[in-house]
Amino acid sequence: MKRNVLIIGAGGVAQVVAHKCAQNNDILGDIHIASRTLSKCEAIIASVHEKGAMKGEGVLKAHAVNARNSDEVAALIRETGVDIVINVAQAFVNMPVLDACIETGVAYMDTAIHEEPNLICETPPWYGNYEWKRKEACAEKGVTAILGVGFDPGVVNAYARYGIDTYLDAVASIDIVDINAGSHGRWFSTNFDPEINFREFTGTVYSWQNGAWQSNTMFEVGKEWDLPVVGMQKAYMTGHDEVHSLATNYPQADVRFWMGFGDHYINVFTVLKNLGLLSEKPVTTAEGLEVIPLKVVKAVLPDPSSLAPDYVGKTCIGTVVKGTKDGKETEVFVYNVADHKDAYNEVGSQGISYTAGVPPVAAAMLIAQGTWDVSKMVNVEELDPKPFFEILDRIGLPTRVKDASGDRAWNA
Amino acid sequence: MKRNVLIIGAGGVAQVVAHKCAQNNDILGDIHIASRTLSKCEAIIASVHEKGAMKGEGVLKAHAVNARNSDEVAALIRETGVDIVINVAQAFVNMPVLDACIETGVAYMDTAIHEEPNLICETPPWYGNYEWKRKEACAEKGVTAILGVGFDPGVVNAYARYGIDTYLDAVASIDIVDINAGSHGRWFSTNFDPEINFREFTGTVYSWQNGAWQSNTMFEVGKEWDLPVVGMQKAYMTGHDEVHSLATNYPQADVRFWMGFGDHYINVFTVLKNLGLLSEKPVTTAEGLEVIPLKVVKAVLPDPSSLAPDYVGKTCIGTVVKGTKDGKETEVFVYNVADHKDAYNEVGSQGISYTAGVPPVAAAMLIAQGTWDVSKMVNVEELDPKPFFEILDRIGLPTRVKDASGDRAWNA
Repeated sequence: MKRNVLIIGAGGVAQVVAHKCAQNNDILGDIHIASRTLSKCEAIIASVHEKGAMKGEGVLKAHAVNARNSDEVAALIRETGVDIVINVAQAFVNMPVLDACIETGVAYMDTAIHEEPNLICETPPWYGNYEWKRKEACAEKGVTAILGVGFDPGVVNAYARYGIDTYLDAVASIDIVDINAGSHGRWFSTNFDPEINFREFTGTVYSWQNGAWQSNTMFEVGKEWDLPVVGMQKAYMTGHDEVHSLATNYPQADVRFWMGFGDHYINVFTVLKNLGLLSEKPVTTAEGLEVIPLKVVKAVLPDPSSLAPDYVGKTCIGTVVKGTKDGKETEVFVYNVADHKDAYNEVGSQGISYTAGVPPVAAAMLIAQGTWDVSKMVNVEELDPKPFFEILDRIGLPTRVKDASGDRAWNA
Repeated sequence: MKRNVLIIGAGGVAQVVAHKCAQNNDILGDIHIASRTLSKCEAIIASVHEKGAMKGEGVLKAHAVNARNSDEVAALIRETGVDIVINVAQAFVNMPVLDACIETGVAYMDTAIHEEPNLICETPPWYGNYEWKRKEACAEKGVTAILGVGFDPGVVNAYARYGIDTYLDAVASIDIVDINAGSHGRWFSTNFDPEINFREFTGTVYSWQNGAWQSNTMFEVGKEWDLPVVGMQKAYMTGHDEVHSLATNYPQADVRFWMGFGDHYINVFTVLKNLGLLSEKPVTTAEGLEVIPLKVVKAVLPDPSSLAPDYVGKTCIGTVVKGTKDGKETEVFVYNVADHKDAYNEVGSQGISYTAGVPPVAAAMLIAQGTWDVSKMVNVEELDPKPFFEILDRIGLPTRVKDASGDRAWNA
């Protein structure tokens, strides 16, 4: 049975992962946290102790690591003796961390697709450019690698699998809908790393429709969604990781991702983008300083983890699957509603970090217990969703289903 | 008779100054252009020759200078043997250039108030913080220094003086109105150096009303103005140089400055300001690079001088003076209308640079001829406006008057 966990990263999501690992250290064993900045890891450990989150006595330790250096990560894996790595650092380090896991033979997971700093929005399917190139190596060495196991991507992939397997004979479309109806009270802020947030929206919006990749621009295609708890919400078709694996695993279905945006967000984004301030390419100031505009925008925006104390309201994120069952048109929405204030009270983070950080801990528990220890590289829709939902129900992200028969717990 | 001119700066305004000096080199003699970047001076010289702008055979020469270094400027003044310095570089160099002129005993002029890079919007009257501290030194050495002799400040100060002297017994208010009804066809651009442009609007809006300095915020006070040629236009009370000298010279009058802004400009400005991207104070990126956000915004925006070829439409800038004449309430608007395309055809610059660059050349001609060679430091409203208008009429910026009796040339 695999256990002992190394968390890479020390941002808002890492904080949630650390708290949840601590709450389940009877299953997960030793917990190590590593990032470039040791003090950020130490602050997370202090917050875990402050909440009394450790279920039992055990190891909870901070380390400094340069995660862009695969050898350094491998050395840390060996030194700490961990069996599972939860990578929730910036998406730029996925490949070196994955390589370190393959090298040392331990389980790997992440919550977002690998990105190269100087490239935005490469050719679809995105996973094919980086992670999937290690499929063979994982299979050969029997390494379990679960890609994109945050909320979206992650839980929503499991929702798609579950909705299709349970309610459809044939799937026609998979629409992931992500609505944050919360309010942070700032004039403007992104909910997670501004650099990663904006990079999502500056490139081509890829969707999979009519059996082929389709291209749109951001905010070109909008649609109103009437959702549980959060009500009627406008969302826009957005490029997102899970489209790229779901389209590969369900090529017969249209696969789209929709994210909710208010007019204020769209206005700020549009101004910054049109001025060139979201560019990942360096510019030179009149004084001769070379600087990447997006990194300056990040520097002036609020640190997303600072939003947590004032964040109120709820998120609703889920997957709409449509198709036929017994020859009849059928539609099911599998979803979760999370509350920002509840998340803060429990782990000191806002809801967006909470929904992203809880799922990889559930996945780590399933690996530790052997259920998801599949000895190969997979995306979440390739795994049995039910044991995942059972743990998520228990540790803070209950799954619900809404269809023509009503709105209920998935296992009601 | 003073002659031979050194132009400091090589931006859009300097280009206009160089062309206009060349067109009048029978009066102005040798023409030297100096800036940090020699190639920019050389490009201006090439453009002067391309338009065949030199009235007669004569010197037109480029120099490299660090204008923040007063000794370097003084050395260049001695080397070139000039008698008049037209400073149209960034406003950060006013004081060292002025000191070099006092040191060498030559005439000085500029078109904008001195600024320190790290300070925005100091206590009023602004001139009192820097330039006016050299009044005594100028008087002692008999140095002619004409402050703020662009269009606004500059020509509008002369408009105020002329309107008051000619049409009023007692002045009650001076309102300067600056409307650019032109279109550059870009998504967004400032019309002159973005750094200076935005710095004008991020601080307190000072006006002089009811015999005291009043404070407002930018875009807080708006007013519709019905103007010749450009029609009904919304303008906002704005902090601006000329308020600070006119309030000192006409303390009995309310003195306000109004600048026209479209909703698009206001939206972009508001987003950038509220995010902190217009700050002159450095921030540190996640990678540890220290950078001033405003300088990055400048780096991504279009170079204002690049707008000229596509700029169409007109500017209307003038001064409304109100008061009493023979016991009756009287109001007069003294103004100029300039055309962007005409400016480009004549000197290769857009209208905003043109209106700023022509007046200091007229002033230089008046110094060369002795008319304005006053051997002390003055603001423009302290000088006889009529010879100034006569030259401006001839060299491209005719003065008009509109009042209850109609709309006419000032000397009709």
